[in-house]
Amino acid sequence: MTVRLAQFSAQGAALWGAVADGGMIALSPAFPEFPTLREVIAADAWDQVAQAAEGRDVTHANGSFTWDIPIPAPEKIICVGVNYPDRNAEYKDGKDAPPNPSLFIRFARSFVGHDAPLIRPPESPQLDYEGEIVIVIGKAGRRISQANALDHISALTMCNEGTIRDWVRHAKFNVTQGKNFDRTGAIGPWLVRYRDESQIANIRLETRVNGEVRQSDHTARMLFSFRKIIEYISTFTTLVPGDVIVTGTPTGAGARLDPPIWLKPGDVVEVTAEGIGTLRNTVADEGEA
Amino acid sequence: MTVRLAQFSAQGAALWGAVADGGMIALSPAFPEFPTLREVIAADAWDQVAQAAEGRDVTHANGSFTWDIPIPAPEKIICVGVNYPDRNAEYKDGKDAPPNPSLFIRFARSFVGHDAPLIRPPESPQLDYEGEIVIVIGKAGRRISQANALDHISALTMCNEGTIRDWVRHAKFNVTQGKNFDRTGAIGPWLVRYRDESQIANIRLETRVNGEVRQSDHTARMLFSFRKIIEYISTFTTLVPGDVIVTGTPTGAGARLDPPIWLKPGDVVEVTAEGIGTLRNTVADEGEA
Repeated sequence: MTVRLAQFSAQGAALWGAVADGGMIALSPAFPEFPTLREVIAADAWDQVAQAAEGRDVTHANGSFTWDIPIPAPEKIICVGVNYPDRNAEYKDGKDAPPNPSLFIRFARSFVGHDAPLIRPPESPQLDYEGEIVIVIGKAGRRISQANALDHISALTMCNEGTIRDWVRHAKFNVTQGKNFDRTGAIGPWLVRYRDESQIANIRLETRVNGEVRQSDHTARMLFSFRKIIEYISTFTTLVPGDVIVTGTPTGAGARLDPPIWLKPGDVVEVTAEGIGTLRNTVADEGEA
Repeated sequence: MTVRLAQFSAQGAALWGAVADGGMIALSPAFPEFPTLREVIAADAWDQVAQAAEGRDVTHANGSFTWDIPIPAPEKIICVGVNYPDRNAEYKDGKDAPPNPSLFIRFARSFVGHDAPLIRPPESPQLDYEGEIVIVIGKAGRRISQANALDHISALTMCNEGTIRDWVRHAKFNVTQGKNFDRTGAIGPWLVRYRDESQIANIRLETRVNGEVRQSDHTARMLFSFRKIIEYISTFTTLVPGDVIVTGTPTGAGARLDPPIWLKPGDVVEVTAEGIGTLRNTVADEGEA
């Protein structure tokens, strides 16, 4: 079984380690040169870290720690909008699918880890889910060709790219504010090592709310492929290890239902990506989490 | 004379210090607890640092160092779009001025410091200037009221919010890519301490290209005031010390001239804000800087 690495907190300490059935095997104490998984990835230390985990007992049993987002302080979190069929049509603006991916930025503080509640702020009832696959950059680069693009991926994980829907259209341009309410999205639970294209060529991606399937699609149907996304983004900015790219959500967010259905306290949202895992979060009103 | 603090590099070392007539007085070696100006600001150590600079000789004469952006790695750089009169009309889309500020994010690596060349990438000839005033947050907060907003400002500086104009409309939504080409904008030269509202109530802001005035306006005419901007942004995200807010540009960017005039190698762009200083940059083609 391939190693899965996670960031977690226990008794006030931020740690990282390997995920086991009964809990976490803390590894960060043995690797002071890697304060977070960002440094593990930058050093491409997967083998070294996996070896250190081998045969070790769980140090933190399930229930004795909380999950953090896998890269706690990435240089960038770049999100791709409108990247599955029918998503462009959902906007009903009569415009053709765009020639280039729409991109926006989220701050790390807009995300929580696995199992933590997504926070519905008092400003809006329109908290919505968006299940997505995340690639984490391992090797820096600028103007990366599509041919070489996948060599720059170190890890895979998932995102619930939770959105305050009415704040996405609060101003003349840009979705910034609706995408950046503190703790409205989630990333995790863990990083799975990226090995080759067969892992990502046709991942089944599904989002369920209280067990009901709301989003379901496959990465082979992405409008902009993983290769294209990396090529395009690296045209303008240098990608560096630990950079997080959130690759877009299938049709079926709550805003697209008729009438729309928003997330409410007590809901359970699960994002499952075949071969990566399941990211599960509850929902709570701010101040009641 | 009030202290001006700057980040700079000399012989491969990143330093910060006080700006004097003949050069820089390096202070970072005396303050290991403050690796960058972000930590100086977080500790509100202006008095302590100013005192340490008093009577000291220049340690790095002009010409022996390069200017860096004043907060090298802020948690966030948030930019306000369309914030001076006539800017909304420039879009000629027949839409009314929006009720809320348009916001977008830039990465630190999209900026250079004072006196460094802005880089025109091979992908586009449409490098454009936007002179702006920058506020730097000193005190963390969420849902900051307009009444308390100015207490959260620690410092003022300037930005040339350089833009690759055709890439701003490359995709369906969001200006992300046109605003984030590496080294296309500038921030600096230094931080001026924020003391009270009289400093910012009506700053004259002017941008010149090769000495010709292209943009000129006053902060009293901003559509969204400094108080409103801080209130609005902190509604959704927690502001933390070192956060950089770029507050919008007056009418007159090169894109708005008829025909448009783009920046070209050899041009000199100066952004002057009364009471803060002048940020000056040249322009170079990538690979020839």
